Amino acid sequence: MAARSGNRPAVFRSPAEIPLRPRAADTHTGLRTGRIPVLEPAPTAPGGYAPKAFTGEVVPFRVVSFREGHDRIGVHLRLTSPEGTTSLHRLSPLADGTDRWQVEVALEAQGQWRFEFEAFADEFATWAHAASIKIAADVDVAVMAALGRDLLARAAADPHRPAKQRAMLKARAATLIEADAATALAVATDPGLAAVFADRPLFALASATAEQTITVERTAAAVGAWYEFFPRSEGAKRAKDGTIRSGTFRSAVKHLGRVAEMGFDVLYLPPVHPIGRTHRKGPNNTLDAGPADPGSPWAIGSAAGGHDAVHPDLGTLADFRFFVREARKAGIEVALDLALQASPDHPWVAQHPEWFTTLPDGTIAYAENPPKKYQDIYPVNFDGDPDGIRVEVLRIVRHWIAQGVRIFRVDNPHTKPLQFWEWLIAQVTAEDPDVVFLAEAFTRPAPLRGLAAAGFQQSYTYFTWRNTKPELEEFLTGLATETADYLRPNLFVNTPDILTEYLQYGGRAAYKVRAAIAATAAPAYGVYAGFELFENVARPGSEENIDNEKYEYKFRDFVGAEAAGDSLAPYLRRLNEIRRAHPALRQLRNFTVHWSDDDSILAYSKHLDGAFTPDGAPDTIIVVANVDPHSVRESTVHLDTTIWGAEPGSSFEVEDLITGAVWNWSDHNYVRLDAFTEPVHILHVRSRA
Amino acid sequence: MAARSGNRPAVFRSPAEIPLRPRAADTHTGLRTGRIPVLEPAPTAPGGYAPKAFTGEVVPFRVVSFREGHDRIGVHLRLTSPEGTTSLHRLSPLADGTDRWQVEVALEAQGQWRFEFEAFADEFATWAHAASIKIAADVDVAVMAALGRDLLARAAADPHRPAKQRAMLKARAATLIEADAATALAVATDPGLAAVFADRPLFALASATAEQTITVERTAAAVGAWYEFFPRSEGAKRAKDGTIRSGTFRSAVKHLGRVAEMGFDVLYLPPVHPIGRTHRKGPNNTLDAGPADPGSPWAIGSAAGGHDAVHPDLGTLADFRFFVREARKAGIEVALDLALQASPDHPWVAQHPEWFTTLPDGTIAYAENPPKKYQDIYPVNFDGDPDGIRVEVLRIVRHWIAQGVRIFRVDNPHTKPLQFWEWLIAQVTAEDPDVVFLAEAFTRPAPLRGLAAAGFQQSYTYFTWRNTKPELEEFLTGLATETADYLRPNLFVNTPDILTEYLQYGGRAAYKVRAAIAATAAPAYGVYAGFELFENVARPGSEENIDNEKYEYKFRDFVGAEAAGDSLAPYLRRLNEIRRAHPALRQLRNFTVHWSDDDSILAYSKHLDGAFTPDGAPDTIIVVANVDPHSVRESTVHLDTTIWGAEPGSSFEVEDLITGAVWNWSDHNYVRLDAFTEPVHILHVRSRA
Repeated sequence: MAARSGNRPAVFRSPAEIPLRPRAADTHTGLRTGRIPVLEPAPTAPGGYAPKAFTGEVVPFRVVSFREGHDRIGVHLRLTSPEGTTSLHRLSPLADGTDRWQVEVALEAQGQWRFEFEAFADEFATWAHAASIKIAADVDVAVMAALGRDLLARAAADPHRPAKQRAMLKARAATLIEADAATALAVATDPGLAAVFADRPLFALASATAEQTITVERTAAAVGAWYEFFPRSEGAKRAKDGTIRSGTFRSAVKHLGRVAEMGFDVLYLPPVHPIGRTHRKGPNNTLDAGPADPGSPWAIGSAAGGHDAVHPDLGTLADFRFFVREARKAGIEVALDLALQASPDHPWVAQHPEWFTTLPDGTIAYAENPPKKYQDIYPVNFDGDPDGIRVEVLRIVRHWIAQGVRIFRVDNPHTKPLQFWEWLIAQVTAEDPDVVFLAEAFTRPAPLRGLAAAGFQQSYTYFTWRNTKPELEEFLTGLATETADYLRPNLFVNTPDILTEYLQYGGRAAYKVRAAIAATAAPAYGVYAGFELFENVARPGSEENIDNEKYEYKFRDFVGAEAAGDSLAPYLRRLNEIRRAHPALRQLRNFTVHWSDDDSILAYSKHLDGAFTPDGAPDTIIVVANVDPHSVRESTVHLDTTIWGAEPGSSFEVEDLITGAVWNWSDHNYVRLDAFTEPVHILHVRSRA
Repeated sequence: MAARSGNRPAVFRSPAEIPLRPRAADTHTGLRTGRIPVLEPAPTAPGGYAPKAFTGEVVPFRVVSFREGHDRIGVHLRLTSPEGTTSLHRLSPLADGTDRWQVEVALEAQGQWRFEFEAFADEFATWAHAASIKIAADVDVAVMAALGRDLLARAAADPHRPAKQRAMLKARAATLIEADAATALAVATDPGLAAVFADRPLFALASATAEQTITVERTAAAVGAWYEFFPRSEGAKRAKDGTIRSGTFRSAVKHLGRVAEMGFDVLYLPPVHPIGRTHRKGPNNTLDAGPADPGSPWAIGSAAGGHDAVHPDLGTLADFRFFVREARKAGIEVALDLALQASPDHPWVAQHPEWFTTLPDGTIAYAENPPKKYQDIYPVNFDGDPDGIRVEVLRIVRHWIAQGVRIFRVDNPHTKPLQFWEWLIAQVTAEDPDVVFLAEAFTRPAPLRGLAAAGFQQSYTYFTWRNTKPELEEFLTGLATETADYLRPNLFVNTPDILTEYLQYGGRAAYKVRAAIAATAAPAYGVYAGFELFENVARPGSEENIDNEKYEYKFRDFVGAEAAGDSLAPYLRRLNEIRRAHPALRQLRNFTVHWSDDDSILAYSKHLDGAFTPDGAPDTIIVVANVDPHSVRESTVHLDTTIWGAEPGSSFEVEDLITGAVWNWSDHNYVRLDAFTEPVHILHVRSRA
């Protein structure tokens, strides 16, 4: 079955089996309201775009439905898989008084699913509720028995019910003929009968939402541990005379083992294309590059080629394919950068000046933020020849797909038209639904969310700038709820552009805290090389590393640092092991904040019901982090244990997956978190004690 | 002009005048995203129903729009009145970083308006911004001048611009030929030019939302001071032997003056139809009515007739029409009750048993909440003969419209199908758009809001149960923001069913506080007779009056009480005078909470810009209420005076419209509110000092 459901679904493979939707007798066309209102269907995305899920994601399908008076209603989700299999999933009411209904379903097949909600008068439940109260009070016994008899007889006549069930229903109906109160009450309160009608209700007055679609993408669209390195640094050699020989795809292959051994799934490479010479940037973003300075990989294009070429220093296209293949062997998928801009030396400039902005003096406009100019970059003008540039970008993307790439990290997508991205992503995924685009849009919330809604499978977020407990509580909760229907965050802890003050001044504890939260709070996170070496010196006045790798080669001694105990690699390795072992950590929406009495102790849990885990056992992780990296903190953490089904007040065993310590925990638990040793507990709920 | 706007609108009466919407060159069909994204248009109502406004209401039209990069955009509201006049209203950006835009417009004509938002590249603003920065920095002076010359020349060529403006634009363009920096800078920063382009921008890449509709209803749909009385009590006489002669429409006419003199606009009458005898309820909802007990007006129907008849005790249909006419002369509109249920004696029962539920034993089902039964009432079954019952209800409503009624207070609409109401209200208002339906739906939020969205012009709310400062802050803010696009609250302070503990135990201060808040916080409020006499004794264990008027006649000495100083009537009179004098109080969305240091001092303001007031002067009311009716409280109230355009820190004169006291106020103000004298300040901002 392609959809796993928190409630038991009814699955129908032939149209004849699917219960007809009994139209309300008097549905008037032209009315918005169904006979039973069914409103606010979710998942939903803003702007009318289709909501998204990933294979294996537990998706809450929700709707608001109610009817007049006191009669009972039922609500179904009617779900049709990409291959056309229809299943019905009964929703359960959420908190009293909200009229919200929900069922959690994991959609296991990639593609476009269709769904609609149907509300109906649940005649059996209405009768059973009224009859059980009235018969117990000796009111209207004969009338209630007669009404029940009629209901059961109608159900027994349904040719789609199994014969055995029909016989049972007929027999029960017979017992209600001139039944005494005890007999009638037994029928009204029979859980077996209730189950029969829960599976296949007697429904009337059914009303449905319009059919909607939800796009299910592959798991890697939302789940992954990312690592970023510059291939030119991996295996670069400095000669005695100080000259540097660039690392290559071939030399970088030798560093794949290190990445794989830390447990990362995706390796993201900054642009691998030829780099322009005109106005090339030197070390620390200076304007006077020397002849040996390699330049920024984002200044794309030279006489050696443009977006479809590889930098000669890195090797050949064949070398690149070799790198991708070797990575795959190591369990790593390679993500390529897609930065739609050109150095003045890019072949586009001569061949397609219409793709840029030509000024009245005949020159091409540089990128600028007036009065500042970025003279090593020409921005693309998407309105000069929109069809031409689209065809070209599509060609480039397909070119890299042909080299084995299925993930693209898109540089500054918010500086290109949103409409362009909707078009491009739709074109690409129509042909290859496995392709994933990650939006690097460090911009305002509306365009950031707009990019996700319009098609980007994954998004960088504001994570690096959310460091205090209240900030993190609000931010992480928002990711798991408000935007989860269409935006999958990737919690990168650092990038070549971002070295936050928290990391600059937080010491090693800060690196642990940030990695632990990133790896556990959301299903995708990322680390840029050097993080594990606690690189924390910024260019003065900036939030980026000094001697930024964007403008020079880096020589890092990962092995020596680890041997000396000066590396975070073992911690990252452990985090990635924990992520692999715990399916709860590979979900987006199952995040819940818990209360702690300390203003720097952040507590949250991730829980996955046994219905959705590979081994059928529930998986619950509790994370408690001291986000003040300069302190030792003690506090009480107050858990809502009902989330993982523990009775309030009961105790259960937790194991700290970092240290191996085991404790008995309950609703209220003492914690002591020492930033200078282990600032974060990652606790697995092992059993009830 | 039918639409008044906070920003200066451009109005076009002939299609030729309306600026074409220059399509983005490459709009691809099938894409959701416009070249410039335009998202989340508002006003909007849930469930796809049309949002609503009332004539004279200041409506914020809002949208989210942004574009890639740094170029400037503009956003227009394109508004088409019911008669087909189109106007363009330029939106202003809201707070930085939100990408939200807004313009406030008062729609002055009743009917269906159409609106859409258009975003466009504002080429002049982009140029002026870049040019003013770059030229000042002596960067690209010639290029910027040349770009500006081209823009101005293009604008000068627009045949729809006035000839004088075209000449001016041409002249300015000429000055940019080989302009020096000072000349070019003067053009780029010329506010006159900016104004020309603000009115009629040079726009490119325009993208629009889909066209939406908004229903504008008459002012009384949302604004009014309501009073409720039982006509049978107004002029009822008790003889010496204790027998009572019912009040009549003719005797009640004599009490219209009292209601009008207090300043109420709408007089709501409980059902005026014949009352059933079978299982009639006696005093205090007892089951054993005596022959002289008049019964509940909601037990509708007897041998004397049903929903289209008047109770013989009250007079004739002609008497009713006389009452309605006399009320109108007194400036009062009569609202009738629409309670779709029947006493067992209703003519429907014999003529249309299919409109009720017949049980297997042949009896008709009473209203019930199992195991309780309400044997004086048969609920209508809307599914037995849906078309028949619809036709009948429509006939009844039209019958009362023919008697001069335009307002219906609908009893328990949440116990009837929402679909039925959508149909009925659409049918009635298509013929007579002045008809107003008020929903008495004391139910959960989803159905309460659903009724408003599906068509009810006005709604009872949870107001009576919101009594503390935080409750009121949240509740009243929600009414003014969250639901204001489709739900117009009527803040009744009491009803025959509701005498809250706050009133039972709060003493006279409670009555003042509740009336003052109700009359000022929202544009509609209501009072049920007896409130002004501080009637506060409940039937034990209930939240309704003892000796409830629903089951008996009431004899109240309004005149004597007022003479003795024991009446709230003078206070209500003053509140209604204030409401009439201050247009800010007749708006729904202009409500803002201000901070006070005391947990029982509620402070809010209602402000209306001079663009929307009859005399062109801004109208600002500040209400400060001590909601603890047992206390004297002192506190500091902290005002956001920028709402009414006062400079932070400046002082201004306020007059207490209750006491006449005048003070100089500023941002932070000391208040002392004595529940035992005047618990509420209603302050008018008179002038800056």
